Amino acid sequence: MIQRIDAGPRMSEACIHNGVVYLAGQVPETDGADIETQTREVLAAIDALLAQAGSDKRRILRAQIFLADIADFDGMNRAWDAWVEPGHAPARATVEAKLARPEWKVEIVVTAAV
Amino acid sequence: MIQRIDAGPRMSEACIHNGVVYLAGQVPETDGADIETQTREVLAAIDALLAQAGSDKRRILRAQIFLADIADFDGMNRAWDAWVEPGHAPARATVEAKLARPEWKVEIVVTAAV
Amino acid sequence: MIQRIDAGPRMSEACIHNGVVYLAGQVPETDGADIETQTREVLAAIDALLAQAGSDKRRILRAQIFLADIADFDGMNRAWDAWVEPGHAPARATVEAKLARPEWKVEIVVTAAV
Repeated sequence: MIQRIDAGPRMSEACIHNGVVYLAGQVPETDGADIETQTREVLAAIDALLAQAGSDKRRILRAQIFLADIADFDGMNRAWDAWVEPGHAPARATVEAKLARPEWKVEIVVTAAV
Repeated sequence: MIQRIDAGPRMSEACIHNGVVYLAGQVPETDGADIETQTREVLAAIDALLAQAGSDKRRILRAQIFLADIADFDGMNRAWDAWVEPGHAPARATVEAKLARPEWKVEIVVTAAV
Repeated sequence: MIQRIDAGPRMSEACIHNGVVYLAGQVPETDGADIETQTREVLAAIDALLAQAGSDKRRILRAQIFLADIADFDGMNRAWDAWVEPGHAPARATVEAKLARPEWKVEIVVTAAV
């Protein structure tokens, strides 16, 4: 009744239940890249997981965005605005929080309809 | 299958799916107002969105509260306690996080049953 | 249509709706205990609430972990890894955030299937 994607010993990258997919916090690939690049990487990871779950970015219900430095808000939004589909934008909340690795500037936690 | 409220190019204020409404992070109206005033404003914004979604505060499943300064915990709770309906209080979590604008002292992210 | 566990005047410890249980942020019992002890306490509180909801740790969909000091990431993971069931690990996100009481090192917010 729960489907998991990339189920590891510590966490799964996504859990699907009852028509909703809960993604793990997605983080950048390139340590120390600028905020736009890191945000694009995070959004690409989200796209890939949503595709595996049979969903896509037009079906995101909520995105919780954590920025290591809230001063990166505008830079994050440049990458976000280029990615999101107008008319299909999710509910969203953005706050500052130090992330698990200092090389990461952004982490995004997505909940989507399947 | 997803209904959106105030769907903008960047985000929607709420997404409704499968009997659940996911609100965007709600923020205060009055820059620099004290924590009780700002919390009341945030709760009023939540009330308004829940009404648009066909829900209300007695049907909130979880509230994630972000305070720019955790020292405002008691002040936030004074406004919260006056607002919440005993017997219908949601699950809740409160942590400190810097918000997108320094004039904001509180942001609340609500998930509710429709 | 919403079942609540430990419904108090300010918050409930859990709300169950439509096959999903939304837990309140769970916090440690022992002020000032080390991160592994506090994490074990939080996970025990989660186990107890999930049992009351008719769920268990193998049915967690997502865990949002807040650490007062991200330097406790490895210590938190030692307790987490000993607790989580391989093959049934949830989606997870971990960030740093100051918590409501300075004696708390960790708070975890769980969403699970019932």
